[in-house]
Amino acid sequence: MLEEIKNQVLEANLALPEYHLVTFTWGNVSAVDRQQGVMVIKPSGVEYREMTASDMVVVDLESGNVVEGHRKPSSDTETHRVLYLAFEELGGIVHTHSRHATIWAQAGRDLPAWGTTHADYFYGPVPCTRLMTDEEINGRYEWETGRVIVETFQQRQLSPSDIPAVLVNAHGPFAWGRDAHNAVHNAVVLEEIAYMGIFSQQLRPSLPPMQTSLLDKHYLRKHGKQAYYGQ
Amino acid sequence: MLEEIKNQVLEANLALPEYHLVTFTWGNVSAVDRQQGVMVIKPSGVEYREMTASDMVVVDLESGNVVEGHRKPSSDTETHRVLYLAFEELGGIVHTHSRHATIWAQAGRDLPAWGTTHADYFYGPVPCTRLMTDEEINGRYEWETGRVIVETFQQRQLSPSDIPAVLVNAHGPFAWGRDAHNAVHNAVVLEEIAYMGIFSQQLRPSLPPMQTSLLDKHYLRKHGKQAYYGQ
Amino acid sequence: MLEEIKNQVLEANLALPEYHLVTFTWGNVSAVDRQQGVMVIKPSGVEYREMTASDMVVVDLESGNVVEGHRKPSSDTETHRVLYLAFEELGGIVHTHSRHATIWAQAGRDLPAWGTTHADYFYGPVPCTRLMTDEEINGRYEWETGRVIVETFQQRQLSPSDIPAVLVNAHGPFAWGRDAHNAVHNAVVLEEIAYMGIFSQQLRPSLPPMQTSLLDKHYLRKHGKQAYYGQ
Amino acid sequence: MLEEIKNQVLEANLALPEYHLVTFTWGNVSAVDRQQGVMVIKPSGVEYREMTASDMVVVDLESGNVVEGHRKPSSDTETHRVLYLAFEELGGIVHTHSRHATIWAQAGRDLPAWGTTHADYFYGPVPCTRLMTDEEINGRYEWETGRVIVETFQQRQLSPSDIPAVLVNAHGPFAWGRDAHNAVHNAVVLEEIAYMGIFSQQLRPSLPPMQTSLLDKHYLRKHGKQAYYGQ
Repeated sequence: MLEEIKNQVLEANLALPEYHLVTFTWGNVSAVDRQQGVMVIKPSGVEYREMTASDMVVVDLESGNVVEGHRKPSSDTETHRVLYLAFEELGGIVHTHSRHATIWAQAGRDLPAWGTTHADYFYGPVPCTRLMTDEEINGRYEWETGRVIVETFQQRQLSPSDIPAVLVNAHGPFAWGRDAHNAVHNAVVLEEIAYMGIFSQQLRPSLPPMQTSLLDKHYLRKHGKQAYYGQ
Repeated sequence: MLEEIKNQVLEANLALPEYHLVTFTWGNVSAVDRQQGVMVIKPSGVEYREMTASDMVVVDLESGNVVEGHRKPSSDTETHRVLYLAFEELGGIVHTHSRHATIWAQAGRDLPAWGTTHADYFYGPVPCTRLMTDEEINGRYEWETGRVIVETFQQRQLSPSDIPAVLVNAHGPFAWGRDAHNAVHNAVVLEEIAYMGIFSQQLRPSLPPMQTSLLDKHYLRKHGKQAYYGQ
Repeated sequence: MLEEIKNQVLEANLALPEYHLVTFTWGNVSAVDRQQGVMVIKPSGVEYREMTASDMVVVDLESGNVVEGHRKPSSDTETHRVLYLAFEELGGIVHTHSRHATIWAQAGRDLPAWGTTHADYFYGPVPCTRLMTDEEINGRYEWETGRVIVETFQQRQLSPSDIPAVLVNAHGPFAWGRDAHNAVHNAVVLEEIAYMGIFSQQLRPSLPPMQTSLLDKHYLRKHGKQAYYGQ
Repeated sequence: MLEEIKNQVLEANLALPEYHLVTFTWGNVSAVDRQQGVMVIKPSGVEYREMTASDMVVVDLESGNVVEGHRKPSSDTETHRVLYLAFEELGGIVHTHSRHATIWAQAGRDLPAWGTTHADYFYGPVPCTRLMTDEEINGRYEWETGRVIVETFQQRQLSPSDIPAVLVNAHGPFAWGRDAHNAVHNAVVLEEIAYMGIFSQQLRPSLPPMQTSLLDKHYLRKHGKQAYYGQ
């Protein structure tokens, strides 16, 4: 009964190397079935080229227990689970160490909104989380990673629908969307704007954020109630 | 009767991913038929791999109305239309968010003429437009985007034949040419020189523009009345 | 009897161009058979596409003499040999001039631990050796190159298991692992973190090393006694 | 009778896009037959994919006249000719606008010897020519381009065998070798070291040249009288 979502998760995982977002098996995509209260996620340490839909692991959203599948779920499963529990609008999540988003994460910096490519998908800067405490790192690390993401959105009063990605400090990006496919799409966009941001700032070190009116225009013509956009 | 131009526009659009100028569907190419007073442009939001010539949309140059085609034209159609109306020498136009040209656009900087690769195609710096006003952004945005490009060329007394591209501030490049194919060709060159410019300046922060005599020599041996060039 | 290890060494060498770690024949991989006291290494100056398992050269670990094979061993053979003799845990070694690791080597700088991608594989900074003396360079150069690597690990009290790579000053990287395949894997990771490090520092010039607790967590969950990790 | 050299020149030209050294038709390779006193060069403006050996143009070395072939020779022919006449050891020449070598040329800077990758092929910095005078540019421009290269080597007392490339200021690189194939090989190496140099200096702004002893060692073990090297 979860065949369709397993296939979606498989395809979304296979899209990661295709879009050059991952090296080896560094990356994982999941999707949620809210009615059944489960998430489907990539297994741990399986090569992309060998992966099949039946390798996907089904995890109970509330308990975190594996309810279907013969493999171990990705070690980042607990982070995904926190995000699904806290952010009801999420349908799919992707984690990668894609080069340029990770560069911003390693630098511990928010990625500012510097152009319409950004504004077409993200309604403001992509936030970078605070450093985690030693207690968090030495405790339920992957769960706490999710918690610090949720804290970042709550403290800054950000909507995960309007900012569908985050940079985990000294680690790398998580992106999400209405389903697994859309999450990967947003991860690709994040990588593009992360690349361009590095060099835009180099060309103009004191580059201010883009105009609010232009950010509004581009984000809302695509995602607002009266969206009309499509290139 | 517009079959030939539709095929040209289709092929020019398909060249965008081939030359790594676009991610997803971020980009559009059009061409004009001045005799019939129409432009042919890519449809909105269709995947490159699924696109056929019959998906191309025919738009009346004066009214902006769709006169042929079963799809919605690219949302950037109005920008293309302004440029065709203002610049009579244009036969084709391309808009992309190609990485390195967009980096200069995001930095809000003109791309200086720093070498013969530039001078072989652009007779001076590639200009970056001023920021648009809130009124322009909140008004007929795509049309005003074209207007600010035209203003830039008029105020700086630039010839769109001699400078076949522009950087729209905080947005990205538009390039053009005598037809759709040539417009894409110029967009590829723009991307090359945008890349090289970023790092040339890094190697020499106070890099002056190239010599006028060398700019003249390279541009005019290829585009002047007595052109003789061909590598 | 060495067929299996020859095949492993061949495959590991062929992986170098596949992972974009080498240009032309710039790179070599070896593996050791401790029981037989020999190492198997790529021949000198043979094109990757023409190489077969029978081209691999078997070298006596103690004497350095070729004991099997009709080709000349890689000129870096003596460096590999020193490392196998000094570091008992090594099963395979790879040397490349991969672009970004070489950039750090040319700059003569250690590559700091700046994120979890690094911490997943390297338990601290990847060290850069001191410059070699003229005597070392003019003496048994390739042997001395290995000696300066060993000196670096000894003086800094580093474990080659925990830091499976080094940057040879003004030269390029050596990486290693439990076998030839694993050595190449680590060389790929080194190239990733070398790339990201360049730009992370550019975004934040005074970037401090990552937290010790986070370094511990990521390295030990994958390589420690209670390792549980796998993406 | 020139079939073999024509084939070599064709193959060397086709290697340019394969090694990502050229965009469109930006690049040309030639080779010389000293006994017959002719050079064979790529025709002007022909697409790489359509080019055949019979398109190659044979030019008399002394007079510069086309002596065989139905196409126009590359507009850079006169530059190649000057170099063959001045540097007797040259067998093949290649000109490209390869990105990173061109970046150094545009910055008007010599490329310092910063590592063994450089030292394996170039026995010292790759020189950048002085800017050309207006008289030179407006006179026999392509011929004068060759003259300024020759002047650079003569004034600095460089051997074109030991430094098989040059950066033409505000333009791009020329590389050469004992034949067309070897010239392209050196152009690929130049591009590698040009890339690495940009970022090595960024990591260490006051990076000194590599040690003379190391430069000697690497260059001479490969190119000296007692060369023994081969990876």
